[in-house]
Amino acid sequence: MAANSLDMSESLSEWRPAVDREIERVLPRELSADYLRSFFGEGRYEYDPDAIEDALSTPVWDLLDRGGKRWRAVVFLMLVEGFGADPEELLPYAVVPEILHNGTIIVDDVEDGAERRRGEEAVHHRYGQDIALNAGNALYFIPLKIVERNPADLDPETRLAVYEMLTYELNRTHLGQGMDIRWHNSDEVAITEGEYMEMCACKTGCLGRIVGRLAAIVTDQPDDVEAELAAFMETVCIAFQIADDILDVEHSLDRAGDFGKAVGNDVKEGKKTLIAVHAVRNAAPEDAARLQEILAADDTTDAEALAAIEVMEETGSVEYARERAIALVEEARDHLDDVPLTEDVAAELAAFAEYVVERDV
Amino acid sequence: MAANSLDMSESLSEWRPAVDREIERVLPRELSADYLRSFFGEGRYEYDPDAIEDALSTPVWDLLDRGGKRWRAVVFLMLVEGFGADPEELLPYAVVPEILHNGTIIVDDVEDGAERRRGEEAVHHRYGQDIALNAGNALYFIPLKIVERNPADLDPETRLAVYEMLTYELNRTHLGQGMDIRWHNSDEVAITEGEYMEMCACKTGCLGRIVGRLAAIVTDQPDDVEAELAAFMETVCIAFQIADDILDVEHSLDRAGDFGKAVGNDVKEGKKTLIAVHAVRNAAPEDAARLQEILAADDTTDAEALAAIEVMEETGSVEYARERAIALVEEARDHLDDVPLTEDVAAELAAFAEYVVERDV
Repeated sequence: MAANSLDMSESLSEWRPAVDREIERVLPRELSADYLRSFFGEGRYEYDPDAIEDALSTPVWDLLDRGGKRWRAVVFLMLVEGFGADPEELLPYAVVPEILHNGTIIVDDVEDGAERRRGEEAVHHRYGQDIALNAGNALYFIPLKIVERNPADLDPETRLAVYEMLTYELNRTHLGQGMDIRWHNSDEVAITEGEYMEMCACKTGCLGRIVGRLAAIVTDQPDDVEAELAAFMETVCIAFQIADDILDVEHSLDRAGDFGKAVGNDVKEGKKTLIAVHAVRNAAPEDAARLQEILAADDTTDAEALAAIEVMEETGSVEYARERAIALVEEARDHLDDVPLTEDVAAELAAFAEYVVERDV
Repeated sequence: MAANSLDMSESLSEWRPAVDREIERVLPRELSADYLRSFFGEGRYEYDPDAIEDALSTPVWDLLDRGGKRWRAVVFLMLVEGFGADPEELLPYAVVPEILHNGTIIVDDVEDGAERRRGEEAVHHRYGQDIALNAGNALYFIPLKIVERNPADLDPETRLAVYEMLTYELNRTHLGQGMDIRWHNSDEVAITEGEYMEMCACKTGCLGRIVGRLAAIVTDQPDDVEAELAAFMETVCIAFQIADDILDVEHSLDRAGDFGKAVGNDVKEGKKTLIAVHAVRNAAPEDAARLQEILAADDTTDAEALAAIEVMEETGSVEYARERAIALVEEARDHLDDVPLTEDVAAELAAFAEYVVERDV
């Protein structure tokens, strides 16, 4: 396992500079009128490149320079290579899911009222909400522009397939975010596990599906291969989300003794995680009621958050979520069985899936 | 003129119910799991239709039911009819620019910190910023979904052309909004008239261009006809924006005696309108400096706003803007010369262009 996960991190560090150079070709750090005319179209009067640089390039590169593994781009490139195509030639498409992902981060942080991102203040805190939202939304449409500019000279049917795929997935992304926000704003945890899983599939899974489907489409794979890859990526992303929820609980237990460390962030935010959903449905009635109450409260002390986590532990909900995540990784790997990838790449992807849930869990 | 403008309002009231029924087919007021599965895709687990209805349909229909003329849809239908095609058959495409427009309204109101919209509280004030933003962004992608669902059985090349057109225009929309926000946040008015016009062309013009280009593409017009129609719509929209800026000044002068009425909203917000740009560049140095100072101030009294407007009047900037708007309408009508529309529709569109700047001006 360790050796396999290492493979993925080698791919990540190997490709990352090229991925960033490609993003920089699409959205340079410094914008000129010539670039704007050639990339976005002539325009009828006169662009103000300085204003657009301040409104777009500066906040976006501030975020990108803070880190992020660019794994969506790198998995795309691995897949392309695994199908025997040339990753260098298809590099312009690798940045499509990466740019989309960073757009959702900026917008989600405004929606969630997040304070921090990647160790610094959230983009909307640094540049203002108006600049952040417009930049985040611009990152939703720049990837479509990449398809329109047709860098690898794809035929029209392939480009149409890319547009239709992005349309399908980006619509579902907003359904997932809508469910999550609506539940978040509601006091009661009345959702089913199936609804929670669908929210993850839409909100987190769709961006993963884009990675898989895009790699399949631009290398001209048959529909069933595209569908299996989409299912692989979706399943890995759901497992990732559940693993993230588990981490929040585990860290809270580790930190319970450390004064001043954040404890039970998800509980305090009232997040309806798989763990919370399971615990509310399976705890003893008085424990479930207490848990609902803590999740619904606007101000939650560390002691209350820990009491909620204790109910989750005692109900076996953390263990249940862990088993569910591990089963999803198994399921994900099964989807790779009929995908005709080179052996190396198939192994690396299987390791990637496992790594996702094994992080610190 | 009166008779001609009446024609347009007849078209508006004639088509509006059908346009709203079509929007309702795309996004019903009440959402069921069946609708979600058939419109957005099966999903892997289980949708929560109630949550998605609360997060999406309810805020969007609240906004739509407040009014709006749906002129983007109606002009599209007029154009389609003018090209000899069947507006009933192409009705599903008429709602594409209308849905996009309402998405931009919701998002722009968050970005601008607007309090009110169409006589009621802004959507983000009523439903929360998170719900509003997600709903607004969903309205950016639902129109692409209409193309994917292919209601009028368009051939693949036509659908690809629609996607590429939308990609082109929606990218430029965000450049325009970026310039506007950046200028708005800056104290100095250092922009040129050309930059102001480009901002309007991008921010307001692109949605108009979508109306014209979409009508040309789905009725299979040659490229030059599509370009002329795009220029017609873009030019009308820029004239509309300038007329709007003039209205704000005129209303302020009318209301100067009425205690408690809003005066000089644009001046108070520090908006860089064509009038402001012209006045800063052409007023006597001390007047220009005073105007800049008032535009840059965070709190502006009615007296200060009126002083600023007086500088604009004295510099001839309001008159200049009015002449510019009238010239743009002329220019717009010229673009219709080579567009092969039926005589009736051509006359109605020319009247529409004139109506735009003649409202109360």
